[in-house]
Formats: sequence, structure tokens, C-alpha cells
Amino acid sequence: MHIIAVDAMGGDHAPQSTVQGSVEALRAYGDLRILLVGQEEKLAPLLQDAGDVRDRLEIVDAREVISNNESPVMAIRQKTDASLVRAFALVREGRAQALVSAGSTGAVMAGGMFRLGRIEGVERPALATPIPTAGGGQTLLLDSGANVDCQGAWIAQFARMGAVYARQVLGVTNPRVGLLNIGEEEEKGNRQTKEAGALLKETGLNFVGNVEARAIPMGEADVVACDGFAGNVALKAMEGITKALFDLLRQELTANSRTKLGAALVKPALRRIKKRMNAEEIGGVPMLGVLGAVVKAHGNSSAKAFFSAVRQAYRMLEGNVTDIIRSELQDV
Amino acid sequence: MHIIAVDAMGGDHAPQSTVQGSVEALRAYGDLRILLVGQEEKLAPLLQDAGDVRDRLEIVDAREVISNNESPVMAIRQKTDASLVRAFALVREGRAQALVSAGSTGAVMAGGMFRLGRIEGVERPALATPIPTAGGGQTLLLDSGANVDCQGAWIAQFARMGAVYARQVLGVTNPRVGLLNIGEEEEKGNRQTKEAGALLKETGLNFVGNVEARAIPMGEADVVACDGFAGNVALKAMEGITKALFDLLRQELTANSRTKLGAALVKPALRRIKKRMNAEEIGGVPMLGVLGAVVKAHGNSSAKAFFSAVRQAYRMLEGNVTDIIRSELQDV
Repeated sequence: MHIIAVDAMGGDHAPQSTVQGSVEALRAYGDLRILLVGQEEKLAPLLQDAGDVRDRLEIVDAREVISNNESPVMAIRQKTDASLVRAFALVREGRAQALVSAGSTGAVMAGGMFRLGRIEGVERPALATPIPTAGGGQTLLLDSGANVDCQGAWIAQFARMGAVYARQVLGVTNPRVGLLNIGEEEEKGNRQTKEAGALLKETGLNFVGNVEARAIPMGEADVVACDGFAGNVALKAMEGITKALFDLLRQELTANSRTKLGAALVKPALRRIKKRMNAEEIGGVPMLGVLGAVVKAHGNSSAKAFFSAVRQAYRMLEGNVTDIIRSELQDV
Repeated sequence: MHIIAVDAMGGDHAPQSTVQGSVEALRAYGDLRILLVGQEEKLAPLLQDAGDVRDRLEIVDAREVISNNESPVMAIRQKTDASLVRAFALVREGRAQALVSAGSTGAVMAGGMFRLGRIEGVERPALATPIPTAGGGQTLLLDSGANVDCQGAWIAQFARMGAVYARQVLGVTNPRVGLLNIGEEEEKGNRQTKEAGALLKETGLNFVGNVEARAIPMGEADVVACDGFAGNVALKAMEGITKALFDLLRQELTANSRTKLGAALVKPALRRIKKRMNAEEIGGVPMLGVLGAVVKAHGNSSAKAFFSAVRQAYRMLEGNVTDIIRSELQDV
């Protein structure tokens, strides 16, 4: 039986989306239990139609909620009765093995670091963002923002943790691991990237060497490792240009009656593309390297998106990701 | 009279595109002279229809050509009879004030550094890439790849040089200068970014603070400064996702007869978007901070694109960019 603690109060559409997504996950996986953490009087009424899974679902009352506007570290330290902090406590106490939250990214990161702590041997935990690729797959980009000033050895560890996730959760047999760089030649890169490259050549990973950021959406590697500053820049640049292109499309396609007719005909195709290239459709962002399977769902997660994030956490437990990261990083 | 040295042999479509682009620039600007540097026997026949501007165009013979496959620094040092090296020599000797090349980026950078040298007071020259924005404008991103390990003070200088270019060449009266970061809050960022932020607050620039990479294509700043690693990652990430989206569009729009009909109707609109968001349509990449106006045109420049790059160099001379950078950086 896998047990997941769900921060039922975090996210733009909480608690409806978190409760509904959790109930759907329970229906999908018979060996799953969920501890729904939040204000009991708000959560209980949402479970009226969940009688079929009610025996595997427990409400854990927590009175406070962490907002996006407060200091994540302070909130995690001081708001001991916040739904997110209680959820972390459940994992720490061993009552759950995984945590899913659509709340503040900073608070989830701080909670992972200070409430759970690092897996032995892990220098720095990392956020691993799945990026949709043109071919319909995904590339795992990490670190995508947790660690800004990185040593090369940390980046090499991100690569190793990413490879474990790709293998155990995404089912990629021998994941191709790339190092984000500004050119493919070995002598390229900043200090930390060159250090990481030298270390990665010595591992047993399927290391494909340096990759440029354009390789990420083209799917030229299954895992792309980098420091959290570069990773976040890549992520936000892709988000920005995608938004810009779709904004322009909307403008151009409503420009005259000819394009409006054309737009009506191609609309389903455009919707498919938008859906395929939308990172949020793939699921949440796992935090790798902490003592528990932690998944940060997108802040604006619908019930369906939250279900995907719970599924990711479930698969991390199925794939034994935490233990395998521990044993692989100890081998070095 | 402005004099520009053109590396006539660099680029995928040289020398046809470089010669044709140069001739068009001469027709556009009556006070422009061009020194066309390259193999005379290849260049002369291309000037048959250029009688109207022939008196402002001189061929400077150079026998060698630098390819993309050789070490840029070695090539610049050793191939003294290469068209690019001769062109740099013309600027250094004062026979020209600007240089335009569609050849190897590395060689143009090495030439700028070693053949021209830095403007007094400039710590590191930078590549400034104009990025098209959704609104039809452009954001100048620098450094976009020349300097990977940066001190904060260098990044602050990039911002200052970029602001001079935006004002003098792009005609932006009081350019909004942003600092590329992974969040807008002041405490965010890696070491060099925080250092740069502290310095930029003390300048007379119209400093809008930290901006995320998504602000670049959205046009939320006229100039975005960063280290060359982050800048290159942003650039390549945007290129990659744009290519991925257009590849998907092509697939989806030829999927069935309905979408094919729609595609025929929206094709001109899509072409306009592609054109607008194509960095190459805007022109080349100026190298700021060296003793001369240097513009790196795209390797696959057509005659029209090469003309744009020559026009940029001309505007840099008109706007007195080199002198203004010298005087502004000395004020600090």
C-alpha cells in the first residue's frame, strides 16, 4: 500500500481540484491511500460522491494555509498548522511516503529541505521539470530553479537523479543524459558546466555530452542537467515565446474573414498543439533528492492536472525512486 | 562619409549575398563607402550591375577564407590574409570604422578582441542579440554568448552598453533596462546577478529591475542584461521551441483535408508570424565594447539580411555608438 499526503489547500483551485484529483487517483490505483490535509469542514463536504474510495481516504485537519505572498522559509518554519507543513510532517513521521502540493513552489522547496531533509549522499535536491517535446515525448530538465549557484558536482548529481526518475517513473530504458551548454564542443561552457562534464564522462550514465537549449523541446535527450539559474531561464524563455506565438496566432487568425474561416477549420489542430506543448498537461514537478517523493503540482492545476501530479508521486513510490537515488549516489 | 569594411567571403551564401547586400546599402546611403574584402576575381564579376555606386565601393584583395570548422582564435592569429582578418586590419588602421561579417561567430568575436581590442573602460565586450517581440518590436539581449563566467560588474556594463545601442541605433528614447533573473524579487538570483542588480540600481539607467526570461519575447524591457551563458540558453531555448511549434503546425495542418483547406487559408498569416518572430529578419548581432562598430550577420544571410546588417553598422556609426560607450563607461 502506498500512502500519499496531499496538501488539499494549496493552489488556485483548491480545495475542489485537489480533492477531486485525489479521489480520481484513488479510483485509478487500488493500492493507494491518501491523507487529505486541510480544513476539515471545507474538505468533508467535497467527499459526498467519493463513497467508493472513502475507506482509503483520511482527512487530517490543518487550520492554516500558506499563501504565495509570504516568505516560504518563514512560512515553513513558523506555520506549523499549515496544510503543507502538516503534510510534510506526515511524511517525516513515516505516516506517508509521498507529498503532493499545488501551493507555493518556494514553500514546497523549503519544506523538502527543512522538514524532510536530503537523501544521504545528495549535495542539493533539485526541481525536475518535464518539458514536452515536438515528437510527443518529454525531456526532464533539472535543476529548473532550486539551486542558483552550483558546483559542477551538484550538476552531475542532478543528471544522475534525473536518470533514475526517467528510468523508474517514465519507463525510459537507458535514458540519454545531456549537459546544458552553449555549444556541443567539449571545451565550451562556464566553470560549473565544464566541471560537471568532466564528472559525467566518468559515470555509467548514457551521457550524450553537451546539448544546447534548443535540444530540450526537440527531444534530443531524455534528461538535461544544468544549474538552476540556467534551467529556469530555459524554462521561462520557452514559456514566454510559446505565449507570444499563440498571442500572435490569435491576432492574425482573426484579422479578416478569410483567416477567420481558415481559423475555424484549423482550430482543433491548434488546440492539439497547444495541449501537447503545454508543460502543465504532463504533470507536476518532482523534487528529487529529498527523503520522500515530493511533487509540486502547477499552481493553477485543474482536478485532472492534480490527478496527474498524484499519479507521478504514486509512480515514484512504485519505482522506488528515493531508495534508488540513495543507492546510486552512494556508488560514486 | 562612413566607411564600412565588409568580409565578402564569410557566410553560407557569400560572396553573392554579401556583395548584393553591400551594393543595396550603398544605394540606400549616399554618405557610405564600402571596402569589399575578399578574392578579387570572385568579387569583381558580381559588380557588373553596380555601376551607379562603383565609385564608393573598393575591392580589397584577400586570398584566404576562415571556415566554421577551424579554431577561431588560431584562424584570427595565423590567417593574416583571410578576408575577415584583413577587414579587421582596415578598421584597426582607421581606413574603415565598422566591420560586417556573416562568417564564424567565434572568429568575429576573436577578431574583435584581438585585432581591435576593447574600448577603454570596458571590462568585456558582449554580443547583443535583437530578439523579436510579440508586439512587433525588439528586445536587445546581451551578453548572448561571448562571456560565460561573468562578474556582476561586467553584466552591469553590458546593460549600459545595450542602453547606448538601444538609444542611438534603435531610437528608443529612454530604454527600459532589465536584469535577467529567475524571479522579480530583489533577493533572487545567482551571485553575479545579485552583484549586477546592486550596481544597476546606482546608475542613471531606466532600470526596471529583475525580469524573467519570459519577459524577453513579451517585450517587457528594451534591453535585457545577463551573463553570456544564461543569454545563450535563453536564445537557443526560444529558437528550439519556435522550431518545434512550427514543425508541429506543419504536421497538424496537413493531417486531413479539413485542416489542409484551413491551412491554405491561414498560410499567409502563419508566414507573417514566422517572419515577425524570426530573429534573422531583424538583422545581425552587434559586438559592443570593441574599438569599432562590429556586426555579425547571420551565417545564412540572404542579400536582404546582409543589407540589414550593413544598415545596423551604418546606424552604429551615425549614432556614434563606440564614442558614447567610451564616454558613458568612463563616467562611473
